[in-house]
Amino acid sequence: MADSRPIAAIVAIGNEILSGKIHETNANFLVQELRELGLPLKGIFTIPDELPVLKTFFAFLQPRYDVIFSIGGVGPTHDDVTFAGIAQALGLRLVRNEEFATSLKTFYRDQVNDYILKMADLPAGAELIRDPFLNIPVVRVSNIYILPGDPTIFKKKFLAIKERFRQPPFALKKIYTSLEEGDIAAPMAEAERRFPGVAIGSYPRYDHAEYKVLVTIEGKDRAQVERAYQFLYETFPRAGILRTE
Amino acid sequence: MADSRPIAAIVAIGNEILSGKIHETNANFLVQELRELGLPLKGIFTIPDELPVLKTFFAFLQPRYDVIFSIGGVGPTHDDVTFAGIAQALGLRLVRNEEFATSLKTFYRDQVNDYILKMADLPAGAELIRDPFLNIPVVRVSNIYILPGDPTIFKKKFLAIKERFRQPPFALKKIYTSLEEGDIAAPMAEAERRFPGVAIGSYPRYDHAEYKVLVTIEGKDRAQVERAYQFLYETFPRAGILRTE
Repeated sequence: MADSRPIAAIVAIGNEILSGKIHETNANFLVQELRELGLPLKGIFTIPDELPVLKTFFAFLQPRYDVIFSIGGVGPTHDDVTFAGIAQALGLRLVRNEEFATSLKTFYRDQVNDYILKMADLPAGAELIRDPFLNIPVVRVSNIYILPGDPTIFKKKFLAIKERFRQPPFALKKIYTSLEEGDIAAPMAEAERRFPGVAIGSYPRYDHAEYKVLVTIEGKDRAQVERAYQFLYETFPRAGILRTE
Repeated sequence: MADSRPIAAIVAIGNEILSGKIHETNANFLVQELRELGLPLKGIFTIPDELPVLKTFFAFLQPRYDVIFSIGGVGPTHDDVTFAGIAQALGLRLVRNEEFATSLKTFYRDQVNDYILKMADLPAGAELIRDPFLNIPVVRVSNIYILPGDPTIFKKKFLAIKERFRQPPFALKKIYTSLEEGDIAAPMAEAERRFPGVAIGSYPRYDHAEYKVLVTIEGKDRAQVERAYQFLYETFPRAGILRTE
């Protein structure tokens, strides 16, 4: 699908997600936010908070996406190694950011100790994104926006920076059918060929009484999406079309 | 953490998950199942059903995990490219598997057409795992178990093969505290050093009235886990320990 919008990925970090101790909700929240912003999400990667793993994955993922949201692993304990992992992946040194340290001191006051201040050891060249609603700024390193895993603070931080990611709106049409996927595979393949820039999706529901297959037609160019929709609407067996959106 | 158990990863495939059209539930189900089986899960990767992306990721992931569960993208439509992606990633040809085609013919009967039979084009050397409860076998290619995305069929297929992944049980202790992470970072780091093979985790809950930080102590060796737990229990400020499990 031809699409010139930037593409995004989410990296969620934490053994607690992978071991099932904690049900991850941040990524699901972000999926809906990015959809609303029109920023295409092309990958969600959940990995353990292990330094060699973070190094390997950030090195692999960083050049492949325009924007990466990293979630988790930025606290003061031994298993918070996200900044170190990103630094190693990008070949950057980890250096004490005095401006960030000052924010931590202001926020944590008499709780500040060496472990708290360790959170200010950031990859060299990190940008601090300040916002009136944030006690502690969001950290950006290259194309990676680094957010904490605590759901409340995560949301607050993402919402403070979200508007910088907004894209032009794109068009979506839906056809709900009582047809089998095998019966509509040919026209859908044909529509993909005929209408470049339009993505055709088909989503069967075997457990669902209301419809059998939902077909989605999606793209930046509203007229082209409309043409692909018309083509499918006219090509599918009419009796099998339940409703459209 | 020293741990000789095999490690697993999940690859969930589908634009519909990334675009937020469908809320993915299979991976969450599998996280809990793998936990119960004692098979450590070390990555969850959600990627779009695009052939070059599947090729890139399966090539990257396949050598890094002992067991990979692939979910989705095995239906009859143009966007079902999981088998092709895995074949390309592993340098295998895609060949019609006659035994699998026979299962499809038996199951789909008069609905069988070329698009349905395309589902039997499998990477060369694929193993078919049969089970009395399954109409259509599970496909394994190398260390990759390939499962469908429909939640009902996915569960049925995974449950049919799950016992082959069961591992010896491992030990877990928990300490719920009213302490700050910064206050217990030092003893936790010390426990990691003193007790090899034991994983110490700390999970702060800023929105939670009942406790502030949950500390988990986990490992294969029950006696070693117990020693690490005792060390932390005696090192943490006693007034900050709310309860243990």
